[in-house]
Amino acid sequence: MQYSSKVLENAIHEIAKLPGIGRRTALRLALHILRQSPEEMHLLSDAIRVLVDDVMYCKNCHNLSDSDICGICADQTRDRETLCVVEDIRDVMAIEQTGQYKGLYHVLGGLISPMEGIGPGELTIQSLVSKIESGEIKEVIFALSSNMEGDTTTFYIFKRLNNPDLTVSTIARGLAVGDALEYADEITLGRSLQHRVPYENSTR
Amino acid sequence: MQYSSKVLENAIHEIAKLPGIGRRTALRLALHILRQSPEEMHLLSDAIRVLVDDVMYCKNCHNLSDSDICGICADQTRDRETLCVVEDIRDVMAIEQTGQYKGLYHVLGGLISPMEGIGPGELTIQSLVSKIESGEIKEVIFALSSNMEGDTTTFYIFKRLNNPDLTVSTIARGLAVGDALEYADEITLGRSLQHRVPYENSTR
Repeated sequence: MQYSSKVLENAIHEIAKLPGIGRRTALRLALHILRQSPEEMHLLSDAIRVLVDDVMYCKNCHNLSDSDICGICADQTRDRETLCVVEDIRDVMAIEQTGQYKGLYHVLGGLISPMEGIGPGELTIQSLVSKIESGEIKEVIFALSSNMEGDTTTFYIFKRLNNPDLTVSTIARGLAVGDALEYADEITLGRSLQHRVPYENSTR
Repeated sequence: MQYSSKVLENAIHEIAKLPGIGRRTALRLALHILRQSPEEMHLLSDAIRVLVDDVMYCKNCHNLSDSDICGICADQTRDRETLCVVEDIRDVMAIEQTGQYKGLYHVLGGLISPMEGIGPGELTIQSLVSKIESGEIKEVIFALSSNMEGDTTTFYIFKRLNNPDLTVSTIARGLAVGDALEYADEITLGRSLQHRVPYENSTR
């Protein structure tokens, strides 16, 4: 498509590189940007630049942070003997939202995926292993996605830990709360049966 | 939701102001931005800033432009006696894509809409009327959306023109090429019948 302005064309070109945004949506966004006050849109432009330039990763857990050590790792009231291993920072947010977990996290930054060329070296696995070897951690909980990449990554890390004093668990798989039994797939339902919980614990 | 970084939270807040982008999509986009090279993402931030600061509107037709007069208005090979009135610059692009129109444009910048508080004063109607009164234009073609706002705007401008020497037309309404007759709504089909064209012209 022909644009009447090079400036517009360039903006569309850059916006359309974002995932899930095609050239038509990019044009709509660019026209929206032009209808706003310049001050408002400088805020957007600056927010992106500051995000790129100023964001830091926690040296301990690799979560996004505004300082060297993130708020969760710095919080001395949390259980420092339990470590939850997750794929990325969205998972930290999701688990924090539940209010059910008071330990620390370790953000891998991805999952092992030979198909996408992501090996253990691309992830923060070495830092995880060193942290556990240093001895403060008593339990490691794997909270990775339930797919081939997630299972591979869990298995790889489990093999590397190799410490009989360490409790290693994964989050439970089963029917979602509110799900109808008849629509559940057989693997999920199978695991739900296999890992059934005593009734007196089931609603806690 | 709690974010571990103020910088991230601010970026999400600004991105989520864009139309059609909620906080969850904004988070996904922000994490995508963090995975790219800083240079790439400075291009995005700069493209938005340059768009806001440097874009110009053609003094003649109000189309987006890189200079005072846009490429279409400056093109002396175009038919300068025909003027097509459109709502916004996307319509100019759509009509240019057809390759069927060689005249000039006038971009209104919106449609009259009492519901949204947009009156004739918010649009470039005065500039359109002055341009037509200056006398070079022989035909005005209204190419506005086929809804209440579009019809109101066309009617308002038509009344203001009030010049017996001027040919005024609107683009044809009817079944889209490829449409099945049985699924057409009755108003469209009615207009299609009313404005039927001689068969020898119909495929030109």
